[in-house]
Amino acid sequence: MSDDFARRLARHAHTVEACLTDALANNDARVPSRLAEAMRHGVLAGGKRLRPFLVIETAGLYGVPPETAAYSAAALECVHCYSLVHDDLPAMDNDLVRRGRPTVWAAYDEWTAILAGDALLTLAFEILSRPEAAEDAERRVRLVAALARASGAAGMVGGQALDLAADKLGDPSQPDEAHVRRLQAMKTGALIAHGVEAGAILGAASNVEAAALADYGQALGLAFQIADDLLDAEGDATVVGKATAKDAAAGKATLVSLRGVEAARAELAQTVQRAVVALDGFGARADALRAAARFVAERQS
Amino acid sequence: MSDDFARRLARHAHTVEACLTDALANNDARVPSRLAEAMRHGVLAGGKRLRPFLVIETAGLYGVPPETAAYSAAALECVHCYSLVHDDLPAMDNDLVRRGRPTVWAAYDEWTAILAGDALLTLAFEILSRPEAAEDAERRVRLVAALARASGAAGMVGGQALDLAADKLGDPSQPDEAHVRRLQAMKTGALIAHGVEAGAILGAASNVEAAALADYGQALGLAFQIADDLLDAEGDATVVGKATAKDAAAGKATLVSLRGVEAARAELAQTVQRAVVALDGFGARADALRAAARFVAERQS
Repeated sequence: MSDDFARRLARHAHTVEACLTDALANNDARVPSRLAEAMRHGVLAGGKRLRPFLVIETAGLYGVPPETAAYSAAALECVHCYSLVHDDLPAMDNDLVRRGRPTVWAAYDEWTAILAGDALLTLAFEILSRPEAAEDAERRVRLVAALARASGAAGMVGGQALDLAADKLGDPSQPDEAHVRRLQAMKTGALIAHGVEAGAILGAASNVEAAALADYGQALGLAFQIADDLLDAEGDATVVGKATAKDAAAGKATLVSLRGVEAARAELAQTVQRAVVALDGFGARADALRAAARFVAERQS
Repeated sequence: MSDDFARRLARHAHTVEACLTDALANNDARVPSRLAEAMRHGVLAGGKRLRPFLVIETAGLYGVPPETAAYSAAALECVHCYSLVHDDLPAMDNDLVRRGRPTVWAAYDEWTAILAGDALLTLAFEILSRPEAAEDAERRVRLVAALARASGAAGMVGGQALDLAADKLGDPSQPDEAHVRRLQAMKTGALIAHGVEAGAILGAASNVEAAALADYGQALGLAFQIADDLLDAEGDATVVGKATAKDAAAGKATLVSLRGVEAARAELAQTVQRAVVALDGFGARADALRAAARFVAERQS
């Protein structure tokens, strides 16, 4: 990770965390304090804030100030975090620890975690509806539509459902590669791609530019997932920060298990290249987004 | 219930169910079929569709066609139904039956019910973002903001959290009347009031009219809850369609348990009167909304 990229990543994380802290400050006396605390526990727990970075950098290609893009970035991060809060539940992945801290249900209880997740998802759309979130109402509505599509039944939630069906329903047929790709594109790819999409909406990108950015976002999502699978297969648990070799232990089909480590590494390199090339039309202004593609592939955690 | 009111209620229910059926038709091949079925199970299970009725009738005061108001009505019903799907979960109210059918988690399983609820909440905002949902983007954004506030941590979800805290955390102090009123206004009142609010937004009501309609919506929500508590205390389970005397058995504080049946009946009558009077400025056009206030108070199920 280059020093410049690391600095930008940290700076944008700081910007979006200020926006999230403000949105979660619970200035409304009606919000029960236990619920508000659980929501903060689920969101303000660190993390790289990669998705917000993508919103802020893509919008920045069009001169949109980080302080404006921070709202769309915060909304996306709320959705990402709610998905983790629900994913960790006993009925789903049954995880006790995330980023070295108790998961929300472990720290509170199941019903608090279910409601905190629900409230975070709702908050995401409330944030997008604020006048500060975008220049005009038309753009705010487009952000709502895009986030809802990326996170709903045809996006992230649908991907979770496919993942859990494979895990819980004990389908004896080993899923094929096309199924794994579809699942991953929905479960992980959709929200990463939305980061770039939201930036393009904020910047009122032309159709041609929006298509190039969508190609970048899609490639980035795929690269992220292949890197994740490789980390699980090969990573050192003390560096990765969570248990590794979980996929193999669970008999879970990934691109790594289906195609082998070498083929996955090759596809990862090609996918990063595809992401970088998709940005050709943007010149040096898009260097931070190019660096993000390399970072996603090379990260150790 | 007058024949005219019954006919209008049935007609609007039909209109919103057509919109919901369409939104849940799963024309997108990416949506997993199990998830799509569970979503339909949670939404297309009958019911009076009172909240959609309020949207359509309030918007109708301003000449907004039912087919347009149906989108905001469908979005609100998605939120209402998702809240029931999550509320029925084992970690929440642990209910196996709703309206004589298995609850979503009982018919499928917990993870499917959690994800189906998440997807329905997300779908609500997707529906509001559609061009058909309102005349202009400004109104669509206001609908998003209002629905998010009514259903989030300071609204419905917050009310659920207060309710479950009393139930699960075994707070030894008996909640006082102010707490019960706050809880009920959030848990039940907020979404009922939003039905009226959404209609006012669609109709571009003046501030004065919007305030009168908000007063009506608030009174209606309160009347609904008092009637519900009275039904639980006095109703016949075979007519009500669910177990009665649950509140007393659970030691749950309600306005009926805190103030007695007679005082609750008197407050219900006054509240219906307040709702009816709030509509004075609208003349005969608001007769169906006045009938709704009486219906809410007099219903036997």
